[in-house]
Amino acid sequence: MSNSYKVAILGATGAVGTEILELLASRNFPVSQLKLLASGRSAGKTMEFKGESLPVEMVSDRSFDGIDLVLASAGGSISKELAPKAVSAGAVVIDNSSAFRMQPQVPLVVPEVNPEAARNHQGIIANPNCTTILMAVALWPLHQHQPIKRVVVSTYQSASGAGARAMEEVKQQARAILAGKEPETHIFPYPLAFNLFPHNTPLNEQGYCEEEMKMVNETRKIFNAPDFSLTATCVRVPVLRAHSEAINLEFNEPFSPSQAKSILSQAPGVKVVEDWQANYFPMPVDATGKDEVLVGRIRQDISHPCGLELWLCGDQIRKGAALNAVQIAELLVK
Amino acid sequence: MSNSYKVAILGATGAVGTEILELLASRNFPVSQLKLLASGRSAGKTMEFKGESLPVEMVSDRSFDGIDLVLASAGGSISKELAPKAVSAGAVVIDNSSAFRMQPQVPLVVPEVNPEAARNHQGIIANPNCTTILMAVALWPLHQHQPIKRVVVSTYQSASGAGARAMEEVKQQARAILAGKEPETHIFPYPLAFNLFPHNTPLNEQGYCEEEMKMVNETRKIFNAPDFSLTATCVRVPVLRAHSEAINLEFNEPFSPSQAKSILSQAPGVKVVEDWQANYFPMPVDATGKDEVLVGRIRQDISHPCGLELWLCGDQIRKGAALNAVQIAELLVK
Repeated sequence: MSNSYKVAILGATGAVGTEILELLASRNFPVSQLKLLASGRSAGKTMEFKGESLPVEMVSDRSFDGIDLVLASAGGSISKELAPKAVSAGAVVIDNSSAFRMQPQVPLVVPEVNPEAARNHQGIIANPNCTTILMAVALWPLHQHQPIKRVVVSTYQSASGAGARAMEEVKQQARAILAGKEPETHIFPYPLAFNLFPHNTPLNEQGYCEEEMKMVNETRKIFNAPDFSLTATCVRVPVLRAHSEAINLEFNEPFSPSQAKSILSQAPGVKVVEDWQANYFPMPVDATGKDEVLVGRIRQDISHPCGLELWLCGDQIRKGAALNAVQIAELLVK
Repeated sequence: MSNSYKVAILGATGAVGTEILELLASRNFPVSQLKLLASGRSAGKTMEFKGESLPVEMVSDRSFDGIDLVLASAGGSISKELAPKAVSAGAVVIDNSSAFRMQPQVPLVVPEVNPEAARNHQGIIANPNCTTILMAVALWPLHQHQPIKRVVVSTYQSASGAGARAMEEVKQQARAILAGKEPETHIFPYPLAFNLFPHNTPLNEQGYCEEEMKMVNETRKIFNAPDFSLTATCVRVPVLRAHSEAINLEFNEPFSPSQAKSILSQAPGVKVVEDWQANYFPMPVDATGKDEVLVGRIRQDISHPCGLELWLCGDQIRKGAALNAVQIAELLVK
């Protein structure tokens, strides 16, 4: 790659694509040419990049000719089809879908955790699942200090995890309910406004949903800890775009909350948010639009001498997807 | 007590009081006289009971003369002041506040768990905290089968936990946000619509909030298990009136999910709701208005050989408060 890059955003009009576009501009990523790719439905629209209006093109097999870097966020099936073509055309693909994440030859990267893994790519680098990224950023510095023995995590996941239309659906449902009408469901299987439900991804034979198994398997790969012990309960809540996670950690030795706080206060990508006097801790509205994962309520688990509790919120679209992808791109061009 | 009872509802116009009134009627509680008591703010209103319109009276020291049974749901400070007066006047008080719960001489009762405790009252019987009741109903039958070694619970608590006006506040906030305006906060310290935050009760020195310590201490008392090991993260979510809980259980021996399901299917006050094919599990909207605690997603914890995961939803106003109180009253008159 040269000092300035021909970049394509695949899925440019989606929630994550839009954010990637914004981040490439605000972070001054060295772009010499920018191609906005989407399905036929969005082709013909225009989007702003550094004051310039760019057309959204319908993606085709030839879209990647001459492109150095593809930031893909168009779903697993499209990535499966197009990422290999982009690689054949000479591009590096940073893929936000789950299509390649668990393939052994594909690095799965959280820049704060395993930036070195990005170097060993064979054309595709996978961006982890949103809940996994947010958790990994917070747990890695603690895990470095003392290996984590076991994680019990419960998530509070926003509508944006299912895309921009899902965020709109929750708003429409809320409008309907407030007007005394029945909420309609199109994206989600059940109403989410003023309601919540276990994450609606397919369940495996052990009763874990895909989202939960992503947290288990992706964390193991990112941490390079094949036996990392984790159980998760993933839940969708009527919040728009930041995820929250209640995380219970078990270590082999006691881990004092003050030490954990001190470590996290210096950790990249983390911001400790704790005002015990004011009972103020991370909230989705405060995490929205922020780069950092907000971590707080760091406390000794009173049920276990080697237990530690913490609470985090992170922008699902930003650090949970778009920002992490752009940070991977930055690693490549460094 | 005779075969028909002079009953007073203290806090009759609140979210819980309203539900108690409805339950006394629908469950045909043997009422010979019903007194609706509230603060001066609500005095003069009328409420329906079995087709009859009853006045709401302002509570005074003399309100309990001749009353057999007081169902109190008017907050801790009012209970602290008035419950002893009601007892002096000869009434039995079933108190929904936290004022007396941990006093050794006051029984703390979940009828499905420790009905016998109700017999040993000295005038006051305490109704446990909502999250505690819902959890206790689901965990007790498992704990009877094999003692629970440790609980890690994360809650998803509805607005109704802070009363009827809090439910209204969430709706108003949602209306404001949908109209592009700033949400107002009066009851809650932070906006709850499209947001969530750790439970805003006072924090102790260990960083646990009151709500979390209620789950710890009240469960110990109800289960008569002073060393019962539990850690909780309590979170308020923008749901109107049913609470949800993600519960991780640790036993000394493996506890198979099929056995747990079989036990819970026969447990009083529990309804197992699991459709693995349809990815359908308990949801707040389905628990609303239901007597039972809905339990589902019963699965082996893949991070621990003796771990079990489950998920529950229960109507916070109904089983979490009013129904449990009325069930205690039914124990007394049996």
